[in-house]
Amino acid sequence: MNTSQLSTQPTKGFRDFYPDEMAIRQWLFDHMKAAARSFGYQMYDGPLVEPVSLYEAKSSKELVEQQTFQLTDRGNRQVALRPEMTPSLARMIAQKQQQLGTPLRWFNIGPRFRYEAPQRGRAREFYQWDCDLIGPKTPEADAEIIAIACEFFNRIGLSADDVVIKVNNRKLLESKLSSAGFKSEQFSSLIPWIDRRDKLSREKWHTALKSEGISKKHIEELELLLSDTDVSYESEELTQLFSTLTDMGYADYVKYDPSIVRGLDYYTGTVFEAQDRQGKLRAVLGGGRYDNLVELFGAKPSSGIGFACGDMVIMELLKDTKKIPDLNTSPTQILITIFNESATRYALKTARMLRYAGIATELYPDPTTKLDKQLKYAHKTGIPLAIIAGPDEQAQNQVAVKNMKTKQQKTLSQKELIEYIKKHLTPRP
Amino acid sequence: MNTSQLSTQPTKGFRDFYPDEMAIRQWLFDHMKAAARSFGYQMYDGPLVEPVSLYEAKSSKELVEQQTFQLTDRGNRQVALRPEMTPSLARMIAQKQQQLGTPLRWFNIGPRFRYEAPQRGRAREFYQWDCDLIGPKTPEADAEIIAIACEFFNRIGLSADDVVIKVNNRKLLESKLSSAGFKSEQFSSLIPWIDRRDKLSREKWHTALKSEGISKKHIEELELLLSDTDVSYESEELTQLFSTLTDMGYADYVKYDPSIVRGLDYYTGTVFEAQDRQGKLRAVLGGGRYDNLVELFGAKPSSGIGFACGDMVIMELLKDTKKIPDLNTSPTQILITIFNESATRYALKTARMLRYAGIATELYPDPTTKLDKQLKYAHKTGIPLAIIAGPDEQAQNQVAVKNMKTKQQKTLSQKELIEYIKKHLTPRP
Repeated sequence: MNTSQLSTQPTKGFRDFYPDEMAIRQWLFDHMKAAARSFGYQMYDGPLVEPVSLYEAKSSKELVEQQTFQLTDRGNRQVALRPEMTPSLARMIAQKQQQLGTPLRWFNIGPRFRYEAPQRGRAREFYQWDCDLIGPKTPEADAEIIAIACEFFNRIGLSADDVVIKVNNRKLLESKLSSAGFKSEQFSSLIPWIDRRDKLSREKWHTALKSEGISKKHIEELELLLSDTDVSYESEELTQLFSTLTDMGYADYVKYDPSIVRGLDYYTGTVFEAQDRQGKLRAVLGGGRYDNLVELFGAKPSSGIGFACGDMVIMELLKDTKKIPDLNTSPTQILITIFNESATRYALKTARMLRYAGIATELYPDPTTKLDKQLKYAHKTGIPLAIIAGPDEQAQNQVAVKNMKTKQQKTLSQKELIEYIKKHLTPRP
Repeated sequence: MNTSQLSTQPTKGFRDFYPDEMAIRQWLFDHMKAAARSFGYQMYDGPLVEPVSLYEAKSSKELVEQQTFQLTDRGNRQVALRPEMTPSLARMIAQKQQQLGTPLRWFNIGPRFRYEAPQRGRAREFYQWDCDLIGPKTPEADAEIIAIACEFFNRIGLSADDVVIKVNNRKLLESKLSSAGFKSEQFSSLIPWIDRRDKLSREKWHTALKSEGISKKHIEELELLLSDTDVSYESEELTQLFSTLTDMGYADYVKYDPSIVRGLDYYTGTVFEAQDRQGKLRAVLGGGRYDNLVELFGAKPSSGIGFACGDMVIMELLKDTKKIPDLNTSPTQILITIFNESATRYALKTARMLRYAGIATELYPDPTTKLDKQLKYAHKTGIPLAIIAGPDEQAQNQVAVKNMKTKQQKTLSQKELIEYIKKHLTPRP
């Protein structure tokens, strides 16, 4: 092959994470973890590859047939790269249902794969945070899951002015649809169209519904009920949910919205979706209550509520609202320069002492490099302090410490050095 | 399809991580990160899917042709699930070589996929820690990479009695091979057989080498030089490497071993492999110096040294040496039980106060569940404290705190509660 044509670019729809991008990704994941853990959630994970049959049974037809990356392994197994986490969650719970018991509070952060057109806030490989509370079928449980999302927004600096969680209830929606004259057989074909309403022009939306055999009068009734924001009190579940979220301190983040339905078939009660207040981006996260998690595996019925939050739309929102922090990419607190070859031993011992004291320390790895180039590296890497130890300092068991920002230099004994660094510590990854 | 046949098991060679298993995985990863960061290494990541052509150019033929999971995506791209990290590292560095500069200290922890026979310490999806120092071609750089591995072992409780890092140098090996009468054209076919020597009987190994056209006399010469542990001083690189590692405090962990060669073609200097001292397991980690990282992309030559450490053999070694810690799976410090429906509000407000104080708090999510069942859940989940607040306690703005281990109970004001919990805090994930 002509290797000179080897591309340095990742495959279309896939992303590289250089250290500066990785630092932001870790910052985001750390806040997801912290929010979930503050409510007692435990991290779990499953394989990145699952049988296609699992997704055929548990995922939407569109996802499996149009968006999965599928392959046949060398043992002739039909498998797919994990496009979503819920099927693996269901499989794992079914496997050990008896032993696990309830309530279960679980979360996962990991890669998902979907073959879609890459665009702003969407790639073919992305990361997703899934939180689920399995067992109790109560407004308290529903409120808790939504509260974790609020807590996460709060922790990453997104206020209720930046983001809103719109909440609805499938049962309320269905009773409203019935009152408007729709038949229950129509619900499952209607819901995807209600879900897609804000992505289409009014005209196109009407045409689509007409082609589903729905009359103009019924479409107009539907529009009316999807705009009536004054009926949440008719649902006891919603009323209790909002009152619980208020007691928890998250009232500002949440709002009833009759047009939120979520596209998926399996939701049975509370459904919700977080959106940017400007309405510029797709949903930041979404979820709801489901009742039929594990029945397909022959396990005991089990209800749950959960959400999934991708890493990409939230990043766009953080960019738009200028809330991405300026992070240190390097964990290093101090660079030890090497004066010359014969000073290497002294430098190594100083590094050893500092690491022993818990200070992340780099030694410049080439004693033949000139000192100013070594210091330039410290500056470029964002290392706050540098040590210079020439023959004079060594003779007296001292070092000169240079503050890379102020350019000030100070001569210290080895003992004083640790004190000095700990006083000047900045938080690093 | 007959959905009752839906399996609850993961695909062959893939693993589920229930919360208790995930806690151990995270413990291991945290120590990998901490060891790398104490030397100033920065985390990076690449896609889990790369073009097959990248691996054809950068990986061994055996790996690509026999062990990759390959697929054709919906845009007709031939891609493979990442079997190793170095090709992605090379691609990423070639992409921004100018901008990145050197030295680069990078590490990654993430999934790798290889279709091999699953066995003890080996699965088809595993996690691997890659550490690389790109740029300087010095004994200090070589020593630093090996030191990170030692530091990691030290941090997870594996002493030099449990694990040894065997070190060799390809240049020394090649000069010994030349002295023994081998031609340089023979080296690349010889090295894989030297690498496999301890996996074969002496007889089979002889037969294999004979079939490569090597005479009995030469095979015996080879055996002699692979056993001569007294020649490392002949290599200035090795001498300096060991002296640097001694200055760094890691002498106990490292040892010269002329039979360590590492199978891969691309190593050019120092090579090393960590093994359990008992010699029961396959290599715990391995690596070496390479000179031709990015040339295939048309980039400037760049030397580096690195190692890769999988998550599975090290876990086997930790099991064998009884060094796996007893970890808390749940992050929760306290469970707030709900006395009855009307007590929910008081419970919610107590939870809010505790979370605000940074205490991971669970509320039992169903007020209709009996108290003893709620406490049983706390016990099973390993939550150290539980709160019980009946009408009497509520009336006086108090709570009863139960220590789940000692079964002792104490009535406290809300204010005293936070002090009490912080005093009883145990480290949680």
